[in-house]
Amino acid sequence: MNNRDRILEEARRLMNAHGAQAIGTTQIADALGISPGNLYYHFKNKEEIIRVLFDGLERAFRDVLTVDVDPPIGPARFAGFYLRSFDVVWEYRFIFGGLLNLLRRDEDLSRRYQEMQAWALKNLEAIARQVAEDGNMSKPRGRNGFRSVALNTWLIWSNWIRHVQISSPDHAIVRADMGSGMSQLFDVLAPYLDPDFDRAARRVLAREFTASSADG
Amino acid sequence: MNNRDRILEEARRLMNAHGAQAIGTTQIADALGISPGNLYYHFKNKEEIIRVLFDGLERAFRDVLTVDVDPPIGPARFAGFYLRSFDVVWEYRFIFGGLLNLLRRDEDLSRRYQEMQAWALKNLEAIARQVAEDGNMSKPRGRNGFRSVALNTWLIWSNWIRHVQISSPDHAIVRADMGSGMSQLFDVLAPYLDPDFDRAARRVLAREFTASSADG
Repeated sequence: MNNRDRILEEARRLMNAHGAQAIGTTQIADALGISPGNLYYHFKNKEEIIRVLFDGLERAFRDVLTVDVDPPIGPARFAGFYLRSFDVVWEYRFIFGGLLNLLRRDEDLSRRYQEMQAWALKNLEAIARQVAEDGNMSKPRGRNGFRSVALNTWLIWSNWIRHVQISSPDHAIVRADMGSGMSQLFDVLAPYLDPDFDRAARRVLAREFTASSADG
Repeated sequence: MNNRDRILEEARRLMNAHGAQAIGTTQIADALGISPGNLYYHFKNKEEIIRVLFDGLERAFRDVLTVDVDPPIGPARFAGFYLRSFDVVWEYRFIFGGLLNLLRRDEDLSRRYQEMQAWALKNLEAIARQVAEDGNMSKPRGRNGFRSVALNTWLIWSNWIRHVQISSPDHAIVRADMGSGMSQLFDVLAPYLDPDFDRAARRVLAREFTASSADG
């Protein structure tokens, strides 16, 4: 790994562990045993590091929702969208814990997050509509139907990290917490999904989550 | 209003407008045209001001969920729980925008927030169970039934402020945004509520929210 990538990786690790606010370029350089000058050769400041990390988040997230969306969407593939989206949120959890502060400090990041969110809602809605067309989901109740369900799953997904950190005594979070987040998210979808489809999707979540947890 | 209350009120107003992080004791004293010494006579530091404001939030929130819970719970009263809880979140929106940062800095506040959350989830679950006993709600699907629905409504309620602030170009939020938050929250409950009960409750929300919005 070259120095630039090592800096990015260490910044992500430290911010995930302590929050973006608590970590500066000094801590990152110290942790790597490199000089501040070496770090500044690659990045102007902490904000630039965060922007480049956000590129990685965005790329990973867009991959999750664009790969493999041809109909019909079976339960394993449906579960896969959520499973992999929780992998992404876990990998970049520092961004979701202190999101509003990060965005308030950086207008460019803010605009990009808003675009990602708009794109995600459109795609989450499209996936749900496809599952309905396939005959495995009924039209959601409420004024905005599919759109509202997409937004509720987005709200749970994007706030789950913060919820767990707020709820645990030392604000710690472990990978297994992503499993309970997915279960919460599925409970928003459950009343509209065909019961067999729902059960099959949850079995995939449970199995794949257990398997991937073992990797750390 | 005495000076102590004026300080609290101005602190809440400034933090609601600019976020808790951007506001210090200097800005609060300046805005009131009082000396820092006068402010420090009443409060040791900004953290103490936030703790006292949190007392107010907690009192208001516990009032919402304890007043008037005798069965049966009709649609107007059911809507009222959510209506008034969104009033509370709006009044103390600075707390919900940057919650994790506030709690990370103050262990006592963190513990109190966790207790309030646990109490809220218990009460939200009890209200839903009562509506079901009254014959106006079916048992929610998913592994944890009523508990899971209570948690999903809590997640939407406690994260709605942040979601709106993140989603708007200048991170601004207006009181009318609370109306769309309530509508999102009701879409979690909708599939389990008796359709007539749901419609009646939403009519109350729409009407009372429009009325209270006019007050500013």
